[in-house]
Amino acid sequence: MTRRRDALRWNGWGLADKTFDLHGRDEEVWTVVREALGMSALPSTPAVPLDAVALAEPQLDGAFLERLRALTAPERVLTSAFERALHAVGKSYYDLVRARAGELPDAPDAVVYPEGHAEVVAVLAACAEADVAVVPFGGGSSVVGGVEARRAGHAGLVTLDTTRMDRLLELDETSHTATFEAGIYGPALEAKLAERGYTLGHFPQSFEFSTLGGWIAARGAGQQSNRYGAAAKLLLGARVATPRGEWRTQPFPGSAAGPDLNHLIAGSEGCLGVITEATVKIHPLAEARDFVSFLFRSWESGTDAVRRITQAELPIATLRLSDAEETRFYGAFNAALRPSKVQEVALDALGAVGFDAPCVLMVGFEGSAASVRATWRSAFALAARAGGLYVGRGPGNRWYEHRFEMPYLRDPMLDRGVGIDTLETSTSWSNVDRLYRAVTGAIRGALEAGGHPGVVLAHISHTYLSGTSLYFTFVFPRDLDDPVGQWRAAKDAASRAISEHGGTISHHHGVGTDHAPWIGPELGALGVDVLTAAKERLDPSGIMNPGKLLPPTRA
Amino acid sequence: MTRRRDALRWNGWGLADKTFDLHGRDEEVWTVVREALGMSALPSTPAVPLDAVALAEPQLDGAFLERLRALTAPERVLTSAFERALHAVGKSYYDLVRARAGELPDAPDAVVYPEGHAEVVAVLAACAEADVAVVPFGGGSSVVGGVEARRAGHAGLVTLDTTRMDRLLELDETSHTATFEAGIYGPALEAKLAERGYTLGHFPQSFEFSTLGGWIAARGAGQQSNRYGAAAKLLLGARVATPRGEWRTQPFPGSAAGPDLNHLIAGSEGCLGVITEATVKIHPLAEARDFVSFLFRSWESGTDAVRRITQAELPIATLRLSDAEETRFYGAFNAALRPSKVQEVALDALGAVGFDAPCVLMVGFEGSAASVRATWRSAFALAARAGGLYVGRGPGNRWYEHRFEMPYLRDPMLDRGVGIDTLETSTSWSNVDRLYRAVTGAIRGALEAGGHPGVVLAHISHTYLSGTSLYFTFVFPRDLDDPVGQWRAAKDAASRAISEHGGTISHHHGVGTDHAPWIGPELGALGVDVLTAAKERLDPSGIMNPGKLLPPTRA
Repeated sequence: MTRRRDALRWNGWGLADKTFDLHGRDEEVWTVVREALGMSALPSTPAVPLDAVALAEPQLDGAFLERLRALTAPERVLTSAFERALHAVGKSYYDLVRARAGELPDAPDAVVYPEGHAEVVAVLAACAEADVAVVPFGGGSSVVGGVEARRAGHAGLVTLDTTRMDRLLELDETSHTATFEAGIYGPALEAKLAERGYTLGHFPQSFEFSTLGGWIAARGAGQQSNRYGAAAKLLLGARVATPRGEWRTQPFPGSAAGPDLNHLIAGSEGCLGVITEATVKIHPLAEARDFVSFLFRSWESGTDAVRRITQAELPIATLRLSDAEETRFYGAFNAALRPSKVQEVALDALGAVGFDAPCVLMVGFEGSAASVRATWRSAFALAARAGGLYVGRGPGNRWYEHRFEMPYLRDPMLDRGVGIDTLETSTSWSNVDRLYRAVTGAIRGALEAGGHPGVVLAHISHTYLSGTSLYFTFVFPRDLDDPVGQWRAAKDAASRAISEHGGTISHHHGVGTDHAPWIGPELGALGVDVLTAAKERLDPSGIMNPGKLLPPTRA
Repeated sequence: MTRRRDALRWNGWGLADKTFDLHGRDEEVWTVVREALGMSALPSTPAVPLDAVALAEPQLDGAFLERLRALTAPERVLTSAFERALHAVGKSYYDLVRARAGELPDAPDAVVYPEGHAEVVAVLAACAEADVAVVPFGGGSSVVGGVEARRAGHAGLVTLDTTRMDRLLELDETSHTATFEAGIYGPALEAKLAERGYTLGHFPQSFEFSTLGGWIAARGAGQQSNRYGAAAKLLLGARVATPRGEWRTQPFPGSAAGPDLNHLIAGSEGCLGVITEATVKIHPLAEARDFVSFLFRSWESGTDAVRRITQAELPIATLRLSDAEETRFYGAFNAALRPSKVQEVALDALGAVGFDAPCVLMVGFEGSAASVRATWRSAFALAARAGGLYVGRGPGNRWYEHRFEMPYLRDPMLDRGVGIDTLETSTSWSNVDRLYRAVTGAIRGALEAGGHPGVVLAHISHTYLSGTSLYFTFVFPRDLDDPVGQWRAAKDAASRAISEHGGTISHHHGVGTDHAPWIGPELGALGVDVLTAAKERLDPSGIMNPGKLLPPTRA
């Protein structure tokens, strides 16, 4: 079954009763953060309670709400302050800064929870007729403004929460495919597949609080995407509810019957319709799994190793190379959280071999025991040849064990005057260094210019024959007078650097509202025209997720 | 350099001075064909010469031709009967039947050979302004009517031959990518890559007479697609000339910046614009290559083996399973062409183990020597466990050596009253048998109903985790009174069977004119609407390749 809504944190990550476990070492950990940011003390900056949030006056009349209830069920059309606030924004830093200050830009007039494709079609038709904007909402974990409540001049605004559509409809064990309702959360989906011995293999950091439909709509990528493919590659066929009715693609393994419209559905971000069902590729559960780590003398030598391992086309599940800043920051963080003599000894040893600013590479393997063994041997040889120093299984296993917990760390940081945001891109191998330097430099420069210098961390986490993703995390002392302006300056600087230095504006977070201004430069005028044409055809009244994906002037 | 036009056969396959080599065993080979079809004799049915073809009166005036010459060059706008006939149709059975009878449905008023993207943009703008239809034409090897000259009510018709755009623009050895002008033929492309130690790995049967742009536009697939991916998967970024100017996609390795428009370009079949340049993934030349074959007792056991090998995710280059009819037909053909005592002994042995209707599976490996050895061991184990009998390297090596020559066999067949056509589809593994039976039965039934029963051969040649392609060849005594009606009856029956039994109307030949009527049922009304919207936006006057891809009423 789906998650109870009232168990969720409306203005932060995940479950309301869960926090990041600091193992009682709060003081040590916060000292590391404080010192890294050069702050003399961490201020107390708590969030306002829900009843201090001034939600916009609802604009839908009772008759329309009754109509929605008739099309679904009375208990599935909700207008409480909690539901409206929970569905007002996603989970980006920008979202949380506003929610925690009680300043939500807008909120849906109502939240509707359809059960099944037919109900979604009926709701969209009613909304189109009444000129009511619709924001499709799965787990709501977007970090780019993809689920922000924007009415854009429409007569009303409804958020359509898909999470009660969570059934497994078919599992074809011969064809290794499964058809799910698209509102199913990650853990429920994997549990249903595991019962029969399968996995989808899609494990984004948001896994516990995101849905199949959201992964596809935003073209997400999981931590084992090298092995299983990103969301767009997992998709074989979809059923989409649009304001004009059902649009579906058939799950053929390959086809030359014109363009592949699955790739128009993947990445459509709710602007063309609501993905209600999806047929996806599944894999037998891996028999074996292993994580090993290497240290490299420099970012360049690590990147070179990652490229060589990738281009050797080994069936590796995860390749994750942190730059020196990220290696150092998380090294200090982990040492504070779980101190050990071994760490000190290891760091001394590194100094002795001249690794002044080491970069850690984690390599993950999944598959048959034989394949994991063989792949590990090949990867080890390539990493060693490129100058990698083997440092065992500890860092990788620790990462794997806690890989869904990091988002819980953001809320206590925000409580202490510390900001943290992430953004990502991809580019060709020959352009990686140039883009890496441009983006880290741009973020660092913007934070410094605002008078609150921070740390900028980067890693590679999804690799391809022709290039790689680059993921950036920046941690900074919050400007308590103008937190939004501070964030926007850093975000704009990073986006400009990406756009001007050969990167895509997003590798796996999506476009949403945050990246919409950069879609024009990336796709060009005719690329935007093609998307606009598709939208106008399927959504003539423009009610689907206004303000997302397309450039602001076209939305 | 590109191929000289006058070296090409205007009404048949390939080079005018080359024919299928029968090793002087013409009588034996034709006896096999005649007996397989139950014909008492093979009639003489030669093609008419070019000067017996009544080409439609050109409709473009001299002033417009002068304008095209000014935009390109005087010697690159041609109106000779040879050029017009060569560019009137593609290379399908239906095309050749008409060309050989001197009955071409229409022909372009002129053929223009632009050199470079800017010239194509200028030509398209001029044609849009003058309401002149444009058929983009690469190698012209379409077997689905993809390059047929159709003016569809426009004031004139120009075929735009891309083959003088054949430069390698960039090779990035770090990122394993290459950017080519899209009119380059297969052999020239591979030669340019081989000079630097790389391959694209795209080897369709049409390889010698098809172009990079054509492969992408039709979503083609090569014989090693299991290893290198079909054309749509090779594409990283494209430059497209449209009537509204340049449309380009950037070659990011992965992106979540909205839908992936490369997948709208791949499969667009010249209806949205002309692909002028493409950036594609390349691979280091394989160090080793191997082909081995197995015999299976039945189609079902062979299919099961192919599925298990595929789902084991081994890096295999080619898996090609022939059904019993195809195994028998080509077995007899090869025995006539290259007789050997070994064949007779082998067939006796098979009878002895109860393989009454054996199906041959050819498995191809490419990669490092170590990977080929390891993969071969794993594949052997899986094939043997599924009941496969190892029969050595002979059949595979013979297939590889002659893999581009089979199309040359069609012309002498047509000279002798024998027809041959092919079509293909794909479906999920759980539906393979049902679709296989439906399509072979439909073709066989249609040929019988027409009074000229033939043989229907089938094979699997491109496999995926979730399913496989199915390729059908049918050979039949031509109905000399109504060859087009005979072909259409068989084609319609096959297309209906595919559409009604869970197949895609094409796995890698494309849509063209032949499959356009089946696109509506396959994509659904809203799927067709989306494509129509894209076309109307990029090609407002509807000049680009009319009659292709979209359903007839929408074209």
